[in-house]
Amino acid sequence: MKINAYAAAAAKKSLKPFAYEPAQLKSDEIEVQITHCGICHSDVHMIDNDWGNAQFPLVPGHEIVGTVRAVGFGVKRLRVGQRVGVGWQASSCGECARCQSSEETLCARNQGVIVGRHGGFADRVQVSARFAIPIPDGLKSEVAAPLLCGGITVYTPLRAEKLQGKRVGVIGIGGLGHLALQFAAAFGCEVTAFSASPDKEREALKFGAEEFACTKEKSFFEKYAGSQDILLTTVTVDQDWNAWMGVLRPHGSLIVVGASPGTLNISPFSLIMGYKSVKGSMIGSPRLIEEMLQFAARHKIGALVEKLPMAEAEEGIRRVRAGKARYRIVLENAPAASSKASSAPKSVAAAKKKAKRK
Amino acid sequence: MKINAYAAAAAKKSLKPFAYEPAQLKSDEIEVQITHCGICHSDVHMIDNDWGNAQFPLVPGHEIVGTVRAVGFGVKRLRVGQRVGVGWQASSCGECARCQSSEETLCARNQGVIVGRHGGFADRVQVSARFAIPIPDGLKSEVAAPLLCGGITVYTPLRAEKLQGKRVGVIGIGGLGHLALQFAAAFGCEVTAFSASPDKEREALKFGAEEFACTKEKSFFEKYAGSQDILLTTVTVDQDWNAWMGVLRPHGSLIVVGASPGTLNISPFSLIMGYKSVKGSMIGSPRLIEEMLQFAARHKIGALVEKLPMAEAEEGIRRVRAGKARYRIVLENAPAASSKASSAPKSVAAAKKKAKRK
Repeated sequence: MKINAYAAAAAKKSLKPFAYEPAQLKSDEIEVQITHCGICHSDVHMIDNDWGNAQFPLVPGHEIVGTVRAVGFGVKRLRVGQRVGVGWQASSCGECARCQSSEETLCARNQGVIVGRHGGFADRVQVSARFAIPIPDGLKSEVAAPLLCGGITVYTPLRAEKLQGKRVGVIGIGGLGHLALQFAAAFGCEVTAFSASPDKEREALKFGAEEFACTKEKSFFEKYAGSQDILLTTVTVDQDWNAWMGVLRPHGSLIVVGASPGTLNISPFSLIMGYKSVKGSMIGSPRLIEEMLQFAARHKIGALVEKLPMAEAEEGIRRVRAGKARYRIVLENAPAASSKASSAPKSVAAAKKKAKRK
Repeated sequence: MKINAYAAAAAKKSLKPFAYEPAQLKSDEIEVQITHCGICHSDVHMIDNDWGNAQFPLVPGHEIVGTVRAVGFGVKRLRVGQRVGVGWQASSCGECARCQSSEETLCARNQGVIVGRHGGFADRVQVSARFAIPIPDGLKSEVAAPLLCGGITVYTPLRAEKLQGKRVGVIGIGGLGHLALQFAAAFGCEVTAFSASPDKEREALKFGAEEFACTKEKSFFEKYAGSQDILLTTVTVDQDWNAWMGVLRPHGSLIVVGASPGTLNISPFSLIMGYKSVKGSMIGSPRLIEEMLQFAARHKIGALVEKLPMAEAEEGIRRVRAGKARYRIVLENAPAASSKASSAPKSVAAAKKKAKRK
């Protein structure tokens, strides 16, 4: 049975209905009946082939939640009907030293779910069972979906730091930033939200920030000089990074999870004086995603989402491109398709009709 | 009694004999009869006023070894005749949280020995007793002198890392680099020397490198891709830092202790992919200098030095400017001045005569 999806036919093209025949399920794979899929800025980069690794037609979507519809004969950890999530990574070799050390993201044969394969803007998807993570009961699916990529991207570097007693600033309060505020607050940090949009203040404080600072304010860099131990930047727009280094206390770190286009342009002296550092971080291992989901459930952490029907995937992409998401857009298949794992993907069929009417 | 020194009268001027009347010794100060003083690249920067904080006449010299000639009435830890070393830092407030946490380098009132005061290209110098560090018996004075600034600059960041099982590369095998090789090897690391000068190979291996890599070699960056956990860069010439990030393994760190003039120009992706970082580091606290000296004595670590009479300070500066030091130049006062702490500084007087003859 074909998988009904939304795909870009070529770089920068809009998403259109697209059906494809899935390969036969491998012994270590599962098929997921998708209920929800978040939209991440990386989906836009892949549609635009910004990183040169896109293959078309391209079905975006790598913040997937759904129920297990079928399992390969070698899969023991998951059962049909179980609710699972899938993030950026869909598989790895499973045998190398990295894979055997819960560092699957560093496996030389790691594979992104939308790199050379089709992702979650669809009714179903097939992935390696090792990369399908059970969702704790306490987390709603639409709230959990953005955690699978956006959440783990900010959880991983915070988890790697010794955070006790630290002041953590989050630069950019969007899809990643609003999750970073929640995690940092739950870790007990004194959290400041740094944003160019003053209208985000009220919500930033709700997400856990103790203070909101508008970066467009006059004398901003003077006012916040030497105030933070950690700055986690989620922005994808170039900044005066040297000035940001001045916002750090001695021994402080700027953690980069947003890929701004330019170079970081930091002078050696800005690092040397005060033993400062700049660190990069990306997604995390399945084991870490599982830990994060359990942490999120315990601490009531989740994305603030706007839901759109799966058929409006292109509208969702348009809003993410425009920086209009507050704070994450999650595409949803109609309930019928997800409540009965064995049913036909009615929602997408309906959505396709709706899309055609437009 | 006047202190006889060598000073630059203005920015970029050559060093000339210069005598000055020291202030009355404060209760927490000591006066050191200088036997040796290393020449560090920072002396050149100060003479040239590259950092805008030089005051003239400027007496360079901040890798000082000598014997205690006099102690202030409040000084209990040191006694007259004891051999001590003084590095970059000459004082701090002694009362702030930083000073009370062995982080004197971060004290807001920290003072460099050659910033607004006169340094070690002289027969005597006065400093806060807290910044005069006893030299272990096992270390020769001329070998110890460069450890006081060059040594602690590379020891501090290596000390801060978890090094067991790590591959450490040192970029630039000069005054700092040849010490870094020794420390990294003594910490049990697998050490690689990276240098643009193939003629340094034999000595680099003696300093503790297991491998020498000439960075001018064809396909250098391909050959060493993903090979090092830590890269400690001592060079003051701009590099292709993005390419260097490729030499790091995942989770690897580029540690910057050399202040190259340009920005680091690293793209966010080079850090994000593989959880890499760039860290800055500078000198260390008196407590750390003391630890380093004891470590150096135990492990037979020390600078490979070329000695020059103090009167040839200008010639020494000229050779450091030209990158000709192999591997550190140490100025030496004639023995008479140092063996008897109470004697007049004959060596410098003699040196001055010699200098005038030139």
